[in-house]
Amino acid sequence: MYTKEELSDLISRAITGLPYNAEAEKLIEPVKYILSMGGKRLRPLLTLMACNIFSDKPEEALMPAIGLEVFHNFTLVHDDIMDNADVRRNLPTVHKKWGVSQAILSGDVMAFIANGCIAQAPPHALPKVFRLYNQTATEVCIGQQMDMDFEKMNFVSREQYLRMVELKTAVLIAACMKTGAVIGGASDRDAEMLYESGRNLGLAFQIQDDILDVYSDSRRFGKATGGDIVANKKTYLLVKAMEMSTGSIKKRLNDLLAMKEFDPAEKIREVTTIYDSLGIKEISEKLAANYIGKSFGYLNGISVNPERREVILQMAESLIGRDK
Amino acid sequence: MYTKEELSDLISRAITGLPYNAEAEKLIEPVKYILSMGGKRLRPLLTLMACNIFSDKPEEALMPAIGLEVFHNFTLVHDDIMDNADVRRNLPTVHKKWGVSQAILSGDVMAFIANGCIAQAPPHALPKVFRLYNQTATEVCIGQQMDMDFEKMNFVSREQYLRMVELKTAVLIAACMKTGAVIGGASDRDAEMLYESGRNLGLAFQIQDDILDVYSDSRRFGKATGGDIVANKKTYLLVKAMEMSTGSIKKRLNDLLAMKEFDPAEKIREVTTIYDSLGIKEISEKLAANYIGKSFGYLNGISVNPERREVILQMAESLIGRDK
Repeated sequence: MYTKEELSDLISRAITGLPYNAEAEKLIEPVKYILSMGGKRLRPLLTLMACNIFSDKPEEALMPAIGLEVFHNFTLVHDDIMDNADVRRNLPTVHKKWGVSQAILSGDVMAFIANGCIAQAPPHALPKVFRLYNQTATEVCIGQQMDMDFEKMNFVSREQYLRMVELKTAVLIAACMKTGAVIGGASDRDAEMLYESGRNLGLAFQIQDDILDVYSDSRRFGKATGGDIVANKKTYLLVKAMEMSTGSIKKRLNDLLAMKEFDPAEKIREVTTIYDSLGIKEISEKLAANYIGKSFGYLNGISVNPERREVILQMAESLIGRDK
Repeated sequence: MYTKEELSDLISRAITGLPYNAEAEKLIEPVKYILSMGGKRLRPLLTLMACNIFSDKPEEALMPAIGLEVFHNFTLVHDDIMDNADVRRNLPTVHKKWGVSQAILSGDVMAFIANGCIAQAPPHALPKVFRLYNQTATEVCIGQQMDMDFEKMNFVSREQYLRMVELKTAVLIAACMKTGAVIGGASDRDAEMLYESGRNLGLAFQIQDDILDVYSDSRRFGKATGGDIVANKKTYLLVKAMEMSTGSIKKRLNDLLAMKEFDPAEKIREVTTIYDSLGIKEISEKLAANYIGKSFGYLNGISVNPERREVILQMAESLIGRDK
């Protein structure tokens, strides 16, 4: 089986080697920019790893894996416009650097570059892979819609929040793992197990993200700590705090959310104090751990020999944590 | 063979019947809005007509045809944001009605709805149809990039302009006709003939559009006459006038283009007078007629029995003119 480093290397080379139309230079510059920001390449890595569980030729899943990564980056470019975000991974966002029109259009072309990569799935797997991709991409858009709607809502329930995360984030991780499995020749049952494993992993990742925005140092995370608090972003932490708080704490939390003018550092400090008083960090960490447990449970349930499963479990372990 | 009315009816029903995710209501509202604006449904009609030349089951091309129409409408939603256009077919544009973020996201989901339709091509044709679609969609994005770049350029050559139109408009019409042909079982040569027929038709349509913006009454056209002149849009008329004009006329045209403050009606009147003095309308009409001639030439070259070809030529005739 391939090591994580070998798979990462395959992915990097495939992304660098993507063929671009010679007339498209200006259109593609932002595409290369966002793709070169890198990160852990979590989605294509999971795709190839999932394929490698069932097949000794994970490279058959390489181009679809790249397609899923390009799709993910397409959503980042457009979401950053919608969220009015200036910085991503310590660098200016595409619309900040090139303007909104260019960011819309360069984002758009990524959807078709992604298509072109998906189209390279082995013929036996293409219909399933393409159908799953279209369903997933649609769900990701629905998730982003919910996330935008939440901004205008005073109260979001825990269930609503988790459904949004499921659609916006988790189904793509799920689709990556199922795509790899399908290309690797997994049975329908095993492919579904990998989907569920990925779905739970994605939920865990988002909750970890929510925690890290409040409880990490900003340098490592690539954006200012507390940004979610300043923006009143409905995170698991906020949603849970609104659900749990009562009396004077609930009133203070609502007042903080309603403030039009405030010192950001002070707001972050006060909201964090409320989170601390309610034990929100621990509750959130426990939920993330719970999802990770479920994710590994599904991985454990697939029908492959124990050594293969062991390798994949170790790789999955090494992917957990931040730096996505 | 099916009549144009029968094919139109198939198309309308398929668009109305598109299945949407129940959770996506808010996301889909603008999608239904833009798709219900209607028009002649030129692209899916050409797809089905092209299929019907070679096959008695044009309905096999129905969902891919709808996919191409949804893709076209996706580009309209995003282009209207980039062009800052307020009105389309006498109605407010999507971003004007719902805001830019909503227009970006609802546009995005249309790309995946289109994918889902394309995926329903008959298995024998899917790989070719999907590859052509991805190539075409990428080219359309490149064409839009060129169009945006032209806004910032003082001079655009006739060749540059026609290449932009080819990419932004003509390749999609070409792809529609080729997609129908491929699904209908046409030979590679005939499929290529239909592509070329569509490419020339698309070029003709855009030049007709350019003419109609200046020389039509606004009610029928669905947007104010002369809008291109007011916005200094590089149309075939302007590009040709800049190429042909000399001396004091050239100077006056450049002055008109450089004016920051002006009475729109006066600017339209003056530029139109310059066009008239150079015979731009007739030159443009001749070029459009030339492209239409070439388009019919390619249609005439395909290897089917004369009656079938005759029906298709008559249908194509009836599509020419405005109201797209």
